[in-house]
Amino acid sequence: MSHPLITLTTDFGLRDPWVGSTKGVMLSICPQASLVDLSHEIPRHDVAAAVYLLNRCLPYFPSRTVHFVVVDPGVGGARRPLVCSTHGHYVVGPDNGLFADLCGSDPSSECFEIAASDYLLTPPSQSPTFQGRDAFAPVAAHLAKGTPPAAFGPRVLDPIRTRVAPIASDAKGEVVWVDRFGNLISNLRPDGAIENAVVELMGRRLPIVTRYEQGPPDRPCALVNSDRVVEVFVNQGDAARMLGATVGTTITLVKQGRDRVTPLEPPE
Amino acid sequence: MSHPLITLTTDFGLRDPWVGSTKGVMLSICPQASLVDLSHEIPRHDVAAAVYLLNRCLPYFPSRTVHFVVVDPGVGGARRPLVCSTHGHYVVGPDNGLFADLCGSDPSSECFEIAASDYLLTPPSQSPTFQGRDAFAPVAAHLAKGTPPAAFGPRVLDPIRTRVAPIASDAKGEVVWVDRFGNLISNLRPDGAIENAVVELMGRRLPIVTRYEQGPPDRPCALVNSDRVVEVFVNQGDAARMLGATVGTTITLVKQGRDRVTPLEPPE
Amino acid sequence: MSHPLITLTTDFGLRDPWVGSTKGVMLSICPQASLVDLSHEIPRHDVAAAVYLLNRCLPYFPSRTVHFVVVDPGVGGARRPLVCSTHGHYVVGPDNGLFADLCGSDPSSECFEIAASDYLLTPPSQSPTFQGRDAFAPVAAHLAKGTPPAAFGPRVLDPIRTRVAPIASDAKGEVVWVDRFGNLISNLRPDGAIENAVVELMGRRLPIVTRYEQGPPDRPCALVNSDRVVEVFVNQGDAARMLGATVGTTITLVKQGRDRVTPLEPPE
Repeated sequence: MSHPLITLTTDFGLRDPWVGSTKGVMLSICPQASLVDLSHEIPRHDVAAAVYLLNRCLPYFPSRTVHFVVVDPGVGGARRPLVCSTHGHYVVGPDNGLFADLCGSDPSSECFEIAASDYLLTPPSQSPTFQGRDAFAPVAAHLAKGTPPAAFGPRVLDPIRTRVAPIASDAKGEVVWVDRFGNLISNLRPDGAIENAVVELMGRRLPIVTRYEQGPPDRPCALVNSDRVVEVFVNQGDAARMLGATVGTTITLVKQGRDRVTPLEPPE
Repeated sequence: MSHPLITLTTDFGLRDPWVGSTKGVMLSICPQASLVDLSHEIPRHDVAAAVYLLNRCLPYFPSRTVHFVVVDPGVGGARRPLVCSTHGHYVVGPDNGLFADLCGSDPSSECFEIAASDYLLTPPSQSPTFQGRDAFAPVAAHLAKGTPPAAFGPRVLDPIRTRVAPIASDAKGEVVWVDRFGNLISNLRPDGAIENAVVELMGRRLPIVTRYEQGPPDRPCALVNSDRVVEVFVNQGDAARMLGATVGTTITLVKQGRDRVTPLEPPE
Repeated sequence: MSHPLITLTTDFGLRDPWVGSTKGVMLSICPQASLVDLSHEIPRHDVAAAVYLLNRCLPYFPSRTVHFVVVDPGVGGARRPLVCSTHGHYVVGPDNGLFADLCGSDPSSECFEIAASDYLLTPPSQSPTFQGRDAFAPVAAHLAKGTPPAAFGPRVLDPIRTRVAPIASDAKGEVVWVDRFGNLISNLRPDGAIENAVVELMGRRLPIVTRYEQGPPDRPCALVNSDRVVEVFVNQGDAARMLGATVGTTITLVKQGRDRVTPLEPPE
């Protein structure tokens, strides 16, 4: 039998004792677990970034994987700690926007509040600043050991929504992620041929190619990337910096008539 | 049976071949080991930071975990390589301050010098710059495989001391860690109620609250954190930068009479 | 039986979904694999840095380890995806310079093009930007499960060469790596005694010592490091910054007559 898997997504960084002690708690409860870091470099308190990252990783993991997702600006406050069963996986974290988006795309999803204190390392009242270690880590480990989500507390039907731009199949979308190379990832998933289209962004029209290497070194281009969404890039460069674009920037797919896609031909 | 665990704490960073080759050595000797990074971002040669980090993580790991702690400004020199059995765990590293602090809180601790060259990858004389890989990694792996600490060499009764601020239960302490969010973690562990107290730091008096979200956005406050020590923070901000405080800054808990905690009431 | 091992070396960084989704793919195909990060901080598109790092780590891993090495400036283009059996290990990645160097030092090495689409998550034509996840990760996982390299496609006899400075045993070499502490690692491996030698670099003559702590705080020195190559350092300082040297800087070992190594003796 293979090991239970727990992934970790946080804004903890790697220089404080947070990731290490969290993993110690998990392995003390479920020693056979394999732990996989998705990222600990989520920008501080940026729940939407955690949602994006989890959405891009979760489908590639085996079913029954437990995902520990703790970006928790309201730690110690009234936001509910949740466990969620969704898409055949388990997700654990504070109820601050993560769960509504995930559950929205799987009608069989179920959320539960973490209320049974038996599973916690420390009662929340005594752990005002680090519930990742003291509440979410032990719950993730118990899930990995086989405890069913419903064991942790009452059903929750109204998880909090955060603003996450859904995949858009029509012509208008926005930048939803800027990667480390400055590529601008959008939520636009073209539903048909795009040979006669261009991309508009920050007042510029960008040609659509099929591979990075087709882009000239100093000119932004677009392509449909491996996630089948439109991405704006500069070959060997940094599109975000060159264009001044960021998360939220509008991006438009403009289909052109066949007569308009021959700009390089000489006039007759 | 569960896997033997080895944690790693170093100042190696993640861009050089040091962490990778160290793990290769460990897994070649003890293939069944699970390796857990505590941090490789300890500031260069900062032994006290490694001590802090290990102290905050070790208690959360299962007993018999092996901790590889290599922050080694004296690599290649005369400092002794040590193995230590303490608090039910094993710790491996250079004798430059780590061990005295750890052993001080467990009278059954035992330290041994790593002298038996059979367990080393390379004799120290031929590895002047990277004993992490060539001496400490193989020893950690042999410990994980079950070799008893006394097998590595003679007992050591006088491990070197470094300056580590102990937990203080009285009113005066100091900042012992600045986390990535700029929170100032002290060594002050209040032994009683603190409702009528304030914290003094850098000439300012800071109110004590119970949760981050009770702090106004631009005003430093203090709370007792999940490790039950006093922490100074700015809600959504950076207390270290705002206050100009750092490791070593004095912090004082000032208990006030009941008549002095009503500053928001109008004068009579 | 121990777990199959897969190491990862990339320029993906740790803040994007790339490392996480790649690991998800590997663990979905080979759940029993242990994954070890060598580094995800290879400078963008720097194939030579990946070669250096792999060369410094591979020998320390058990035989049959699978090494996933994806630094892929030509992703989506015509460069071949390869699997290589070399030095008793397996290496997977794009054919952009990695393999020729590795195979050059093991005549029994064999390379194969990844052509059998059964092993891929997505056909390359539909994954123009992320073949790490969609092609190299599944192939690495199938290798870890026991699929022989020849199963993936036809033999390749002419992997691409990149410029990698080989180990030099004569007197003239170059800096091949600058580590996080600013130490300058050369490719010079002295074949004999160096007591009467000095190192020349950037127009300066540097004394050769045997341990870091013998270097004065503000003066660059050289030593033969744990990899038995000449390394230039400043004790507690940063040699690269102090000397203005970098990868490619010439370094020379100058043997001196016995009469010239007594600069500290007074003139007669």
